[in-house]
Amino acid sequence: MTDTSNATQAPLAIIAGGGSLPFAVADAAMRRGRPVVLIGLRGWADEAVIAHYPHRWIAVGQGGHLMRHAREAGARDLVFVGSLVRPKFRSLRIDWATLRILPALYRIYRGGDDRLLSGVAELFAQHGFRIVGAHEVAPEILIPAGKIGTLAPSARDLADIARGLELLRATGPFDVGQGAVVADQQVLAIETVDGTDGMLARIAELRERGRIPRDKGIGVLVKAPKPGQDRRIDMPAIGPRTVEATARAGLAGIAVVAGSTIIAEPVEVARAADAAGLFVYGIEQGA
Amino acid sequence: MTDTSNATQAPLAIIAGGGSLPFAVADAAMRRGRPVVLIGLRGWADEAVIAHYPHRWIAVGQGGHLMRHAREAGARDLVFVGSLVRPKFRSLRIDWATLRILPALYRIYRGGDDRLLSGVAELFAQHGFRIVGAHEVAPEILIPAGKIGTLAPSARDLADIARGLELLRATGPFDVGQGAVVADQQVLAIETVDGTDGMLARIAELRERGRIPRDKGIGVLVKAPKPGQDRRIDMPAIGPRTVEATARAGLAGIAVVAGSTIIAEPVEVARAADAAGLFVYGIEQGA
Repeated sequence: MTDTSNATQAPLAIIAGGGSLPFAVADAAMRRGRPVVLIGLRGWADEAVIAHYPHRWIAVGQGGHLMRHAREAGARDLVFVGSLVRPKFRSLRIDWATLRILPALYRIYRGGDDRLLSGVAELFAQHGFRIVGAHEVAPEILIPAGKIGTLAPSARDLADIARGLELLRATGPFDVGQGAVVADQQVLAIETVDGTDGMLARIAELRERGRIPRDKGIGVLVKAPKPGQDRRIDMPAIGPRTVEATARAGLAGIAVVAGSTIIAEPVEVARAADAAGLFVYGIEQGA
Repeated sequence: MTDTSNATQAPLAIIAGGGSLPFAVADAAMRRGRPVVLIGLRGWADEAVIAHYPHRWIAVGQGGHLMRHAREAGARDLVFVGSLVRPKFRSLRIDWATLRILPALYRIYRGGDDRLLSGVAELFAQHGFRIVGAHEVAPEILIPAGKIGTLAPSARDLADIARGLELLRATGPFDVGQGAVVADQQVLAIETVDGTDGMLARIAELRERGRIPRDKGIGVLVKAPKPGQDRRIDMPAIGPRTVEATARAGLAGIAVVAGSTIIAEPVEVARAADAAGLFVYGIEQGA
C-alpha cells in the first residue's frame, strides 16, 4: 500500500458528483501524501464541502474544461466518483473539445451502460489522461466482508442472497443493472435503467398496492458488479440513502460483494441500518 | 380438432376474470357444440356481457362456491381465463370450503407465481375437477405466426426480439415474469411482480424523466412463456390495452411466441396497432 514512485505523488484530479464519496476519496489520497484537485460537477457536487478543498467547477458535458482544469493543476490521473444520474443527452452543456468528439460520444451513449463508461474513459486516455478507480486510490471506501452495524442476515436471508447472486450471474451477459430484490426465493425486481433507488421505490409502491406476496421484513437487496464491468468508473455503491430506500421497501437488509462495492459514510450506514432494523452485509468474494 | 367423446360434451365451467377473453372461450366452446356455464369473478367479469350466457357469480377466494356452482351445472372441467390482479391475501373473501384448505393455499400463495397457479389447479383436482387450458378448448385464441395488423418488425426490431428471447431464457429458471423490453440491444426492463402493464408504465415514466437512452419508436416488448410454466392457467396474453401501453412506452412493437400466447380481441389489436404505428408479431415456435 506504500506508494514510493514520483508519479503517484503528482496531483490527483477528482471529478466529483454528488454525495460524500468524492471527499472520502480526497481525504484518503491526502492521507497518503498525495495532493488533490476536486473538479466539481455543477448541480451535483456539494458546494459547502468542496469549498474546503482545492477545487474548480465544470458542467456535465464540458470535457474540454475538465481536461484544461486537470492540466493546469498538473494532474494526469482522473478519478470519477459520486452520484450522477445519466443525463438527458439534449440537456448536456457541451463545450468545444467535447463537441469535436461528439459523434464518438453519441455512439457510446447509445450503447449499454458498460460501453458508455468504458468509452468515456478511453476518450480521456486518448488525450493523455489515465482513469483511476476511486477504490485504487482509496481502498478504505470498499465494503469489508461481514456485517456493517449490529444485525446479520438470517438463514432465510442468506438463501435469498445466494439466489440473488445466481440471478445476477445469469443476467450479467445482458448488461443489465447491478441489483435485484429476492424475498423468500422469489425475485421481486431486477434493476435496469431505473437504478437501485428506482427499483426500491417500485417495491415500496407495489407493496403499498398489495402486489408484493411477502410480509414486511422479508427480502434482500442484492448488488454485485456485472461481469466485465469497468470498475474504474462504475463500481456498485451503497450509502445511507440506500439503507433508507431499503427500509421503505420493507426488506430485511442489503447484501453486496465485499471488496467490490463502495460504501459511502460507513458509520452513518451502520447507524441507519441499526435504526431501521436492517442488516448490511459484505459477501465474501467467491462465496 | 373434432371432439367425439362424450366427456368433452359435458358442460364446461369457465371461471371468468376481466376482459373479453372469457367470452371468446365460451363462444369457441359453444361453436364446437359444448355447453358452458360462466362463473364470473365479481369485480372482474364484465356484467353486461356475462348476462348473455348461462352464468353465476362468486367472489375471489370462494373456492367452495365455485365447486358447488360447477357441480350444480354438471361441469367437471374448469377453465380459468381473464384478467385478475393477484389479490391482497387479506382482502380475499374466503368461504368455508376455502377456509379448510387455507393453510395449503397460503403456503402456495407465498411461493412464486408458478407455484401459486399450479398449486391452485392441484387443489381443485383433489376435489374431482380437471383444470383445462383456455387454449385447449379454444385454440383460435392463440396468436398465429407473423404480423397482426399492417406493420412488421424491422431488422433492428428482429435483433431486439432475439435478444429479448435470449434474456427470458436466462431468467426463466428464476420464475421471473414473462416479459422484457429491449431497445437497440439494451435491456430496458424485465417484468417481475409488476406485470406487463406495470413494466410498460415504468418505461413510459422513465422516458418522461429522460432516463431512457433511446429515441421513441425504438424497442420491443417481448413476451414468452416461462420454462415449465403451467399453461393451463397462466399463458402469456396480449390485448388492445397491451398495444396502448406499448404505444405510451414509446416502443416500436410487441413480439410474442406464436401458439403459446393468447390474443384477446385480435381485430381490435390489429386496429389499435395500425392506429399507433406499432407492429404486433407472432414469433415462429423454435425461432
